[in-house]
Amino acid sequence: MKILVINPNSDENFSKDMEVCGRDFMGKRHVVDARCVPSAPKFIVTDYEKSLAIPGLVKLFQEEEPHYEAFITAAFCDPAIHILRELTSKPVLGIGECSIKLATMLGSSFSILTFYDRSIPSLHEQVAALGMEKYLASIRVLEEDDPSLPYEERFYPSAQKAVYQDKAEVLILGCGGLTNGVDKKLSQRLHVPVLDGLICALIVASGLAEYGVGTSKICRYKKEY
Amino acid sequence: MKILVINPNSDENFSKDMEVCGRDFMGKRHVVDARCVPSAPKFIVTDYEKSLAIPGLVKLFQEEEPHYEAFITAAFCDPAIHILRELTSKPVLGIGECSIKLATMLGSSFSILTFYDRSIPSLHEQVAALGMEKYLASIRVLEEDDPSLPYEERFYPSAQKAVYQDKAEVLILGCGGLTNGVDKKLSQRLHVPVLDGLICALIVASGLAEYGVGTSKICRYKKEY
Amino acid sequence: MKILVINPNSDENFSKDMEVCGRDFMGKRHVVDARCVPSAPKFIVTDYEKSLAIPGLVKLFQEEEPHYEAFITAAFCDPAIHILRELTSKPVLGIGECSIKLATMLGSSFSILTFYDRSIPSLHEQVAALGMEKYLASIRVLEEDDPSLPYEERFYPSAQKAVYQDKAEVLILGCGGLTNGVDKKLSQRLHVPVLDGLICALIVASGLAEYGVGTSKICRYKKEY
Amino acid sequence: MKILVINPNSDENFSKDMEVCGRDFMGKRHVVDARCVPSAPKFIVTDYEKSLAIPGLVKLFQEEEPHYEAFITAAFCDPAIHILRELTSKPVLGIGECSIKLATMLGSSFSILTFYDRSIPSLHEQVAALGMEKYLASIRVLEEDDPSLPYEERFYPSAQKAVYQDKAEVLILGCGGLTNGVDKKLSQRLHVPVLDGLICALIVASGLAEYGVGTSKICRYKKEY
Amino acid sequence: MKILVINPNSDENFSKDMEVCGRDFMGKRHVVDARCVPSAPKFIVTDYEKSLAIPGLVKLFQEEEPHYEAFITAAFCDPAIHILRELTSKPVLGIGECSIKLATMLGSSFSILTFYDRSIPSLHEQVAALGMEKYLASIRVLEEDDPSLPYEERFYPSAQKAVYQDKAEVLILGCGGLTNGVDKKLSQRLHVPVLDGLICALIVASGLAEYGVGTSKICRYKKEY
Amino acid sequence: MKILVINPNSDENFSKDMEVCGRDFMGKRHVVDARCVPSAPKFIVTDYEKSLAIPGLVKLFQEEEPHYEAFITAAFCDPAIHILRELTSKPVLGIGECSIKLATMLGSSFSILTFYDRSIPSLHEQVAALGMEKYLASIRVLEEDDPSLPYEERFYPSAQKAVYQDKAEVLILGCGGLTNGVDKKLSQRLHVPVLDGLICALIVASGLAEYGVGTSKICRYKKEY
Repeated sequence: MKILVINPNSDENFSKDMEVCGRDFMGKRHVVDARCVPSAPKFIVTDYEKSLAIPGLVKLFQEEEPHYEAFITAAFCDPAIHILRELTSKPVLGIGECSIKLATMLGSSFSILTFYDRSIPSLHEQVAALGMEKYLASIRVLEEDDPSLPYEERFYPSAQKAVYQDKAEVLILGCGGLTNGVDKKLSQRLHVPVLDGLICALIVASGLAEYGVGTSKICRYKKEY
Repeated sequence: MKILVINPNSDENFSKDMEVCGRDFMGKRHVVDARCVPSAPKFIVTDYEKSLAIPGLVKLFQEEEPHYEAFITAAFCDPAIHILRELTSKPVLGIGECSIKLATMLGSSFSILTFYDRSIPSLHEQVAALGMEKYLASIRVLEEDDPSLPYEERFYPSAQKAVYQDKAEVLILGCGGLTNGVDKKLSQRLHVPVLDGLICALIVASGLAEYGVGTSKICRYKKEY
Repeated sequence: MKILVINPNSDENFSKDMEVCGRDFMGKRHVVDARCVPSAPKFIVTDYEKSLAIPGLVKLFQEEEPHYEAFITAAFCDPAIHILRELTSKPVLGIGECSIKLATMLGSSFSILTFYDRSIPSLHEQVAALGMEKYLASIRVLEEDDPSLPYEERFYPSAQKAVYQDKAEVLILGCGGLTNGVDKKLSQRLHVPVLDGLICALIVASGLAEYGVGTSKICRYKKEY
Repeated sequence: MKILVINPNSDENFSKDMEVCGRDFMGKRHVVDARCVPSAPKFIVTDYEKSLAIPGLVKLFQEEEPHYEAFITAAFCDPAIHILRELTSKPVLGIGECSIKLATMLGSSFSILTFYDRSIPSLHEQVAALGMEKYLASIRVLEEDDPSLPYEERFYPSAQKAVYQDKAEVLILGCGGLTNGVDKKLSQRLHVPVLDGLICALIVASGLAEYGVGTSKICRYKKEY
Repeated sequence: MKILVINPNSDENFSKDMEVCGRDFMGKRHVVDARCVPSAPKFIVTDYEKSLAIPGLVKLFQEEEPHYEAFITAAFCDPAIHILRELTSKPVLGIGECSIKLATMLGSSFSILTFYDRSIPSLHEQVAALGMEKYLASIRVLEEDDPSLPYEERFYPSAQKAVYQDKAEVLILGCGGLTNGVDKKLSQRLHVPVLDGLICALIVASGLAEYGVGTSKICRYKKEY
Repeated sequence: MKILVINPNSDENFSKDMEVCGRDFMGKRHVVDARCVPSAPKFIVTDYEKSLAIPGLVKLFQEEEPHYEAFITAAFCDPAIHILRELTSKPVLGIGECSIKLATMLGSSFSILTFYDRSIPSLHEQVAALGMEKYLASIRVLEEDDPSLPYEERFYPSAQKAVYQDKAEVLILGCGGLTNGVDKKLSQRLHVPVLDGLICALIVASGLAEYGVGTSKICRYKKEY
């Protein structure tokens, strides 16, 4: 089967990394393609930037929908997920929702690591909307960041605080595209599971597609009214 | 002062009704202009239709932001409200949030009246996201609808069930543009307050603008990062 | 129209300040009268003190109810609000509820500033009863207080901690009668909206009265049984 | 030890019934006195009626506090409970809170039986404030009431619906003074535990007094500030 | 890799069905073995029956833990799941948790179909403990059951009510061992996704094992203390 | 009447202490016997250890059930409580649930003192399952523990932090068997109520038995299905 990963921003390299990572994980089992949205901003943090990405994301989805069996929106805020679910009866997964729900099966609390503190309020809303706030140990952002360092170094100080101060039992990389083994490297240093949302979404997307179940079209996601 | 009401769909008459209704309510106190989004669908129900409306809505907002002191997005789902709050330090209100929060100051439970049952799940999400689910008596949709009848007739049967079966103490018209006195007519027949979200949003928008307070720009709604 | 502000304590100056502040805000639009409760304590903090105020407050309300179109109980704990709603079909607002609900339309979190730590538990209860606890960043009290200083100086240290440590995006003055521009002065120094509950309640009370809606008398607030 | 039951209304017979019932239950273990509030209404349903009862209730409490080791406010809405806790370091219990919390130790859901539907919203608030809403099966009121019948007959139809339609595993008599074996008679007919709040409160009040623990005076209930 | 499905009861055929179903789904990808607990009851409904199953279940787990990469407890109440997570650093999944969390990625509400009404209260507790109660449309049990009919016939009436009366968008088979295509047959008749917990747990278990993440051993699930 | 306290571990001295403590409290009123579970571990902290205790605990219960009028499981996690409620129609109480619910009648917040941080996550789950999380100030564990000191000394540092840093108004000893006056000694030093779960459970168990109410057998706790 074929799974489409939609990277909502316009960063080709970003998508390429995701594709490599997804194909490594999925191996021969399914085809994984990753596509970015040329009309979107290079990087998406604010709701405004997200709004600039959505029209192109939806257009891309509509063109590609017939060619894939499952779909992933690969930004942690799960952009446009309800829109896409209206447009298909196949499974549509978000990397935020999948990583948060799988995290709670590995430990009794999790922390989310992200870049900017301005994202904290909307991440709290997202976790609460999923009913998962009681499992949330903390949301930690980069501190005294040195962009010249590799991601695992940049996130290590806040990851460590999440585990030892906030008592997180599982860590989640709260952003798409941290695909070059950041999860494994942090996990080795901190001895807790560290989840990359893309892999989590691929687990669920491929599994649901193989199971042959998809989005329910009977009420919220039916198109006609 | 000047208040801009943005009707997210492209229905001119709809916007005109809102403008008339808003100006009637606001009187000489403030200028109220209502604008629709020409690039949007004629009517917005699904998340997909909403996504088609947002780019034009945001563009309109960016052009008009300097000319107004407060802003209202006039669809019950409060579309783009977080985006607009990122783009201004002035108050931005939604007719859904304002009517729900004012309803809970008039009685201990409320029901929302809307058109289609496919909207019920997202309305539940919206109410829950506002922390107001414990006040929600029910969400009622049109039953055996006869579009040839005036709105107050079309909504009366479900309004009556909301009050007498679901024990709603306050009713909310869960859709923009029901501006021709539907609220007053239903209220007279059912002897409970019936709220039109546009008036509720005008109360809050004008009040906050007069008070001189606006959107907090210190974290979630700051633009730079 | 005429709006009555009931200051539940017996401090004349307090009521006078409220009246001046309310009239400044409302301008020529509506008459604002503020009355205190002669039989009440000079200052109300405990539930016991509140109980001493309520009989006189209710008596005053019953005498004045015919002469006003909307009513505000001007202590942050919204004393007697359910009692008054039983005694009228006009709108009755509390400065606590109104400021908390408007605060959540200006930012994604708020803190309440108050005088004494013994008030913190009941403030938590009040916020939770309103369904707003998820927006609550903190409740902060005066620290190393010097009563000789103006209120904005006395509250500044805890206000600053609320914003920078607790990540509050909006501040609420959790007590009636801080009317002499404390809100504006703190806002200018901290660059976040700071709300005075009296103004918030006047916005809602005047708006609902102009809209012609009042307390629902169909169940909780009906008198007969 | 001595336990004082305060019946917030002015009905002597009501208090007498409570005293008899309490003494029957407590036997020789402790003295139980029940007192009504002469200045209160004969019967208390509304918040207004409650407000008329409280000043006399508090005065009575202040006079009697030195002479008793534990106190019970014997109306289901637990009137003045926080006030009394401020005025003593001895235990103060409410029949509503005690019966609701003990009910959840006997089954996984409970229903409250009360007289009038206008009480339903505030009972919901009370249950929610106690964190017990998830255990609440329903609140049922008298239906086609015939006041000439004994209470167990009057409440039987709604009690039966609570058990068989709402799936309540435990029933609570949501009103003071239903003391003449109504609990036992309904229990025998419906084969579920039926709780009288007065007995529940006596269990907790006498137990806490014997244990030698009382109201915490360190924060919320301390008097000075 | 090898995945062990532990059927907590002692029904060999039951385990055999699960093994066949699991192997069909997993194909050549992983070995799936299903084992029952010889010392357990034939069928598990009550907490008492569950307690009889657990010692043998734990013993079986301890013997087999070295030979498998992931584990599933195959009763809907997820028996012993926290115990097993203490005893391994590999992933341990429950069919209840996995089906409930995957259901919420396919629609905005779900219902659980189970055998006996005495299970409803503990199912409610389980859903609430997972933070998923807001997605729960209903828990439906067999009605006028005819055990001679195939499961899909027996569950159809309550499944239909769940979809059309309770507005469930997704259905979950709330019991292990309904493996012979009951999910697909109900889904075809009702046009909504119907989930078998065993498949859902296999999706997650195999995915997490392939990802190389397991149970966090840093706090709740560490053995030593 | 006779009350059986079941100490789920195999520590005879532990049970003896409980028996002495329980008999001291109950005096001549009721017989209190405490029994341990010979087949259980000496000390129970993990879910695995708990699972080793339960079969013997249940067997002991089944043998003794006819000889007692009320039962208490005397570990803070309330082990096997739902199982025992299935096996009797008499009251079955847990020291965790009873102490938590009584604590909330003495103050507006409580903290739990326990031994090991690995217990914190499951204690949080337990408190949340009871609906009491909003009253929870903190869960504190032993710090720089010196086992040679008496318990009141060992717990004092964290008790003090619970009261002064976490603002707990009531403290709960979150473990069975701290019966030698630790509660009173900590209470005297910190001037807040400190509750021993065993006494709390005896208050409720004896009271319910005297009242003649027991476990509801109509749904969750009925045996047949």
